[in-house]
Parts: sequence; C-alpha cells; structure tokens
Amino acid sequence: MAAELQRKKLLSLFEEEQENIIYMKGAELMYRYQTDFEFPFRQESNFLYLTGIDEPDYHLILDLRTETYYLFAPKRDEHYGVWHGRIKSKNDIQTLYEPDELHYDNELLTVLKNLNPNVIYCLNEEQAEFLEDLDRSFNVDTESLNDAITFCRSVKTEDELNLMREAARINNIAHRKVMEAIKPGMYEYELKAIFDYHQIQRGLLFPAYNGIHAAGINSAILHYTECSSRVNNGELYLIDAGYEYEGYASDVTRTYPANGRFTDEQAAVYQTVLNALNSVIKMVKPGIKMEDLHMSAAEIILEGLKRMGLVKGSIEELLENDIFALFFPHGLGHFIGLDTHDVGGYPKGVDRIDRPGIRFLRARRELQAGMVVTVEPGLYFIPALLKKAIDDDEKSKFLNADKLESYFEFGGVRIEDNIIVTEDGFENMTDVPKEIKEIEKIIRG
Amino acid sequence: MAAELQRKKLLSLFEEEQENIIYMKGAELMYRYQTDFEFPFRQESNFLYLTGIDEPDYHLILDLRTETYYLFAPKRDEHYGVWHGRIKSKNDIQTLYEPDELHYDNELLTVLKNLNPNVIYCLNEEQAEFLEDLDRSFNVDTESLNDAITFCRSVKTEDELNLMREAARINNIAHRKVMEAIKPGMYEYELKAIFDYHQIQRGLLFPAYNGIHAAGINSAILHYTECSSRVNNGELYLIDAGYEYEGYASDVTRTYPANGRFTDEQAAVYQTVLNALNSVIKMVKPGIKMEDLHMSAAEIILEGLKRMGLVKGSIEELLENDIFALFFPHGLGHFIGLDTHDVGGYPKGVDRIDRPGIRFLRARRELQAGMVVTVEPGLYFIPALLKKAIDDDEKSKFLNADKLESYFEFGGVRIEDNIIVTEDGFENMTDVPKEIKEIEKIIRG
Repeated sequence: MAAELQRKKLLSLFEEEQENIIYMKGAELMYRYQTDFEFPFRQESNFLYLTGIDEPDYHLILDLRTETYYLFAPKRDEHYGVWHGRIKSKNDIQTLYEPDELHYDNELLTVLKNLNPNVIYCLNEEQAEFLEDLDRSFNVDTESLNDAITFCRSVKTEDELNLMREAARINNIAHRKVMEAIKPGMYEYELKAIFDYHQIQRGLLFPAYNGIHAAGINSAILHYTECSSRVNNGELYLIDAGYEYEGYASDVTRTYPANGRFTDEQAAVYQTVLNALNSVIKMVKPGIKMEDLHMSAAEIILEGLKRMGLVKGSIEELLENDIFALFFPHGLGHFIGLDTHDVGGYPKGVDRIDRPGIRFLRARRELQAGMVVTVEPGLYFIPALLKKAIDDDEKSKFLNADKLESYFEFGGVRIEDNIIVTEDGFENMTDVPKEIKEIEKIIRG
Repeated sequence: MAAELQRKKLLSLFEEEQENIIYMKGAELMYRYQTDFEFPFRQESNFLYLTGIDEPDYHLILDLRTETYYLFAPKRDEHYGVWHGRIKSKNDIQTLYEPDELHYDNELLTVLKNLNPNVIYCLNEEQAEFLEDLDRSFNVDTESLNDAITFCRSVKTEDELNLMREAARINNIAHRKVMEAIKPGMYEYELKAIFDYHQIQRGLLFPAYNGIHAAGINSAILHYTECSSRVNNGELYLIDAGYEYEGYASDVTRTYPANGRFTDEQAAVYQTVLNALNSVIKMVKPGIKMEDLHMSAAEIILEGLKRMGLVKGSIEELLENDIFALFFPHGLGHFIGLDTHDVGGYPKGVDRIDRPGIRFLRARRELQAGMVVTVEPGLYFIPALLKKAIDDDEKSKFLNADKLESYFEFGGVRIEDNIIVTEDGFENMTDVPKEIKEIEKIIRG
C-alpha cells in the first residue's frame, strides 16, 4: 500500500523521538453554515496521505518507538446503515486499511493513556484542542508534525507520481475538449459545463480548485469566478481549471481566441508568455530555485513588452524597478499534489535547523527530484495597476502610456503546465495544445 | 426589488419591538480545512433573502422603529481588485442594492452604538459572539429573529415562486436528458456528468444538495453518494438530484430501469410508489397536515406490499405496528426554497405563543398557500432493516419472510415532485416523465 510507505517516510524523520507519538484526526463531514447542506466528503490531505482512507470520522496514532499504526474507526449505528449504506465490520476495515491495531473511536482515550507519551505531535491548534478536551494532562506539540509531513509530501513517491500522471492525462482530455468546442457567443458557463462533463464522465468528481473561466477583459482578473459572461468574437478566453484524481490535483491554464484566430496583438502577447513558459520549463532540474525561474520568466516578458513598444528602458532597469510585476503580478508557480497549492513551497527558515532529531529541516527552497510544480507565467493588462503606475513618476518613465492605454480592454494571457522535477531535468505532464498554429487549427476545425 | 418586500414582511412581525434592531452578518468565503481551497461563494440563505446580495463580507442592520435598512460593505483594497475584479464604488453598491444607508464595515460599531438599541436580534450564537466581541454591553437575542425569518421564508412571495418555477423548468430538462441517455453498462458518474452538464450549460452553477446517483442495490441506500458503480442490465437507477436557480432549490427524484423495460417485480413496486405520489399530491391544499399526507402514502404502500404478497394482516394492523416504516423509513417530504431542506418544516410549539408582539408564532404545521414542499414517497428493500424485523416476533408475523428475502437485492424506488400549495390546491412544478409507459418509451427511444 502506498500509504504504508508514506507512513514509514514520516516515521523516519522522528528517529530520535522515541517517547513520543503522532496523533491525527481525519476529516468529518462539512456543512454549509447552520444548515444540513453537506459538502461532498473529501478527506483531509495529510490524513489521506498517511492512511488512504476516504471516509469521515477516523483517527490515527503512530507510535514512534514501536512504529505501530493504530487506527480508530467510527462506530456506526443502524440508522447510519439505512442512510449511508452497509456498515463495515471490523474485519472489513482491517482488510481495507491494514492497521497494526484497529479500535473503535471510543477507545481513543484509553489507548492514548496506555501509550503514555512524553509529547503528542499533532497537526494544528484545532486537533490539539480536541486532545486537550480528552485529557488536560496531555503534552501537545503542534509544529513538528506539520513540518515533517510537509517535508514528506513535497517530494512525491513513485506511487504518487503515477496518480498525478493519471490526473494529468484526464485533465488534458477535458482541456482539449473545451478548445474543440469553443465558438464566439458561448457563455463562460457553457465552457465550464463541457470541462466538468469530461472530468465527471471519467469518474473525477472533485474539482481541484475553484476554476476560472474568463472571457475577454475577465481574463485580466487573476481569480475570476463569476462564470457568467459571453465570449465575444475577437476575444480571448482563459481557462484555469482542474480536477483531482484520487486526491491528486491537476492545475492547467490555457488562453485562446474564441474565433480560432489570434489577432496580431493577441499573438504578440501570447507568444511572449509561451516563450516564457517554454524557456523556464527547460530550466527545471534539481538544484534550481523557483525564484530564479520566476525572474527568468519576468525577463522574457519584459523583452516581449519592449518589442511591442509598451515599455522602454534597459531590461536591467526594468527588472530593478519591478516593472514586470505590473504585467505579471503573481508567482510563477507553486507546488502541487494532494492540494492544488500544495505544502512545501515555503520551508521553514534556518533558525530552527539545530533542533534535534528532526531531519526534515534539511528542506530547502531549491527544487529536488520528485517535486511537482506548476509553471504559469502570465501577462495581463490590469487597468487599476497600470493607471496607478502611469501616474507614478518612478514607474511612468518606463511605460509608453498612450500605447498601453489601448490595451486596457485586452484582458490577459496565462499558460500553465504541471511539471515533475526528475533526476535529469523535468517531465511535463501537461499535453494540451499551446502553440499558436496548433490552437488555431483545433478551434477552426 | 424582491428583497425589499421580504424585508418589509420581516419587519411587520416586529411591530411592537420599537426599541430594538435586527443585525445580520452575510457569509464569508469558506475554505476546506486549513488550506486555501476555496468553496464557490454561496450567500447564507437568510442574508440572501433580505438583501439579494451575492458577494461575501456584507452586514445589515434593520432599525425596527424607523424601518431603516443599513448596509455595511467591505472596504476592498487594490490587491483585491487585482485578484477578484473591479472594486465597486459606494455609488455602484448603492445603485445595485439600494440600502437606506450605506456604510463601510469599519463603521458598524459606531452605527450600532448610535442606534443604542434595547435588544439586538441576531440569527445564532456565532453572530451573537461577533457582536459581543465588538462591545460586551450589547444585549443580544438569538431566538426571535430566527423564528421570524423562518416564518417569512416558509410562505413564498410571488417573486420567489417565479424563481422556483424557473429552477424547476431547468431541472426538468436535466432529468429528462439523463433518462434519454441511460443505457445498461454506464457508470453512475457518467449519468451524473450528463445531469450536471445540462444544469451548468444553462447557467445553474450550484447543486442544491449532494445528489444521489444510485444503481441497483445502491438505490436502497437513502443517502448514497459514492457515485462509482455500474448500472447493469436489468437494474434500476435512482437519481435524486437538483441545482438551484438564483438560490432557489429544485429537488427531484426519478427511478427507472437502465434497459428501458420494467420487470414485473419492478413494475409492481414502482406503480405502488407512483400511486402513493399521485394520490398524495392530489390531497395537497391549504389546511392539510404533512403527517396526514405521510400516513396516506404509507397506507398505499402497504396495500401495494400486500398485493405483492410481501406483508400480511389488515392495513389497520400494519399501520398500527409501523410495518410501513420498514419499507418507507424516511419522511414524505420537506419544505423547499432557499435551502433544499428549507426552514419552517417544524414550527415552534404553543408554549411560546403568548410572547408579545411576535406574530409569526401563529405558524402551524398545516400547509398554507405559498408554501412549497417536496412529495417523495419511497419503497425500499433494506436488508439490515428487514432481517432485523424478520427476527423480531412482533414484526415477523406481518411479513412473508421467504418471499421478502428474494427482494434483498432489489434496491428501492423513490419518486419526488416539487409542489406549490395554492389557494385552491396545488401546482406541481415537476414535469419529468413518471408513468411506466412514458419512461419505457423515452429510454427505449
């Protein structure tokens, strides 16, 4: 089982913490406000990572000395059986999830007391409070476990990478289907309907995040979620959306013209972003820093803006004065895994590196083989940002204000692929057309 | 504006409470666990009812003496504009939502203090705590407002009914599309994909609840949500799903054979449930009680079970001994509106009816014109329930155990329509084929 290897990986980080245990509470059902509107159950990512269990109300303990995996299952009553399906016996649960010791959750306190740990590592304040409500005498630590599991999750196992490849494979199909279907006059929600259809039809039931379907000027709103506008002839459509497969996210962005023909202006902006994407992806390998990739993309974007006559000055000056950030105001990418914005992107600083026995503090901001990241450069014309810069003496000298103003209705372009860092370099899991000729051919049929 | 009428309706219930005010906090964005996974924003239903505002972080005050509607808008910064779109000016907000007084939310405490109310009515403990954190001296009541707004929402205005009719119209289409598409061998998630597609394609982005797509034996799990099984030839498929339109829910259930031909056994069970549905809907009119409708459905279901030779004894005995509840273990229906399980189904008892000035306590369990309910009889063969009854001396004498056991793999049938109670009787908003001949014709094409 993948989860067993993942538990071992976590335990190996606590070799010197023999007197302590790890406790983790799985997710419960979530409801909307004070109603019985129930969200589809999605296991909490850390618990899923350590157990593979995709049902509510479980708990686990890992004993650091004996490496024993204790699982605590909810005791379901007859009423539960009628409403939610056959009740699993202890045997069923043992066979499915293979804990070393299986208990019902009413035995949690007894087991905790018998183990009599020095410290109980748990994920956060909420889970610490749960433990302290069981027994005030427990000594709870809410930092180490979070750091350790973040360290584990930031480098994927081969099992995890295979799940991510399968997520990517299906997401590639869904993105291509939308590209094939788009026509001027369609509404953003019609394109969302197609995207969602091709995911759900293949058994992917969970969006990895609240997707963005943005027509025309909406494409310059980084986190546009209204999904209600018409994509007009001549406009770009930006889709940033993904579904997860067995908990693992895909997060892909494409931008293309609804009518299947880039205008010269659109092509110039688009090709600049595509150059940044392609160039930066080729730089991905162990040891490189995300911030260096970001600055490399920023440079290519500035060169494009210069060619278009929208900014002036040397690239060095433009970089120094953060002019790129007016057009590319978000990060180049993020870790991706059980969460779309996965853990591990911002490891703890060196001030805690001397803490004994917790080897995960070797984590560094440099990429390592087995990490998975998104690369998603963008170039946007956001009137609020640009107007302010045009009115700013320090910024305005780098801007061709007149020409820039003609782009205020342009919107923006973002292109995003999902990349595995390998020993030799990278593997790009995203295979959705992105070259101009290819896109035009698909849309125009 | 519909919301204005709805505020007036609420205020009219507090005529004698001149020194008091109503405070309500709109919804904030919700996140999954301790991640940045953001759920699509859905306004809290009571706040939506009183304001029509579909964006996060608003607050309202209604002054009971002057009937002034104070709206408090969040002050968005530039960062918000870049990520979430154009920032609305005060003028924009005034034009859109038409409050009597518009403030930014940092003025909430000042306005509350200036109003200097005897009592602040608010929805629940959470909102009360928010107020008490602003100023410990506030005198907060968490019961009256909830009761009053429940009373208002349980009888729909004509505007609300029109929104519910539009929700029903689109949901009718989506249900019919699934019926047209089903074939043996399809997976539950493929049918969900079709259902969701036809909603989203028409601009309905929010499921009204976590829908049920249940093949074969899964149809006897009342709240089945796994959505992963194959619908085999010869099996029934039960779909209980709906999307909301501008906040108003639709909640429809159909059950039909994947191959388009009911077996004799399936037809007998199905026709029994359909008879119960049709008969009970015809009884709907002002003054009738939901519990009487429920018992009437139970009687028809028992008659069907007798005809099938599955139960024995007189209908009176079977009713007295709750035998129907072994086969029909859920309620006949519920109120529906801004929530799928809408407020108002269980009004407060008579012990509080003498409280002064709060006229909504006239609420009674009897149906009134303008109420909207689901009617959803079902007949299920749930082995866990039936085995226990067969082993019970009191129950088993009413059961033909041998024959019943041959139904343990049958699953269940539920049929559900959405009904407006009118002055004269009822209006059935659900128009999805339900007669056996009609269904067979559609599925077999």
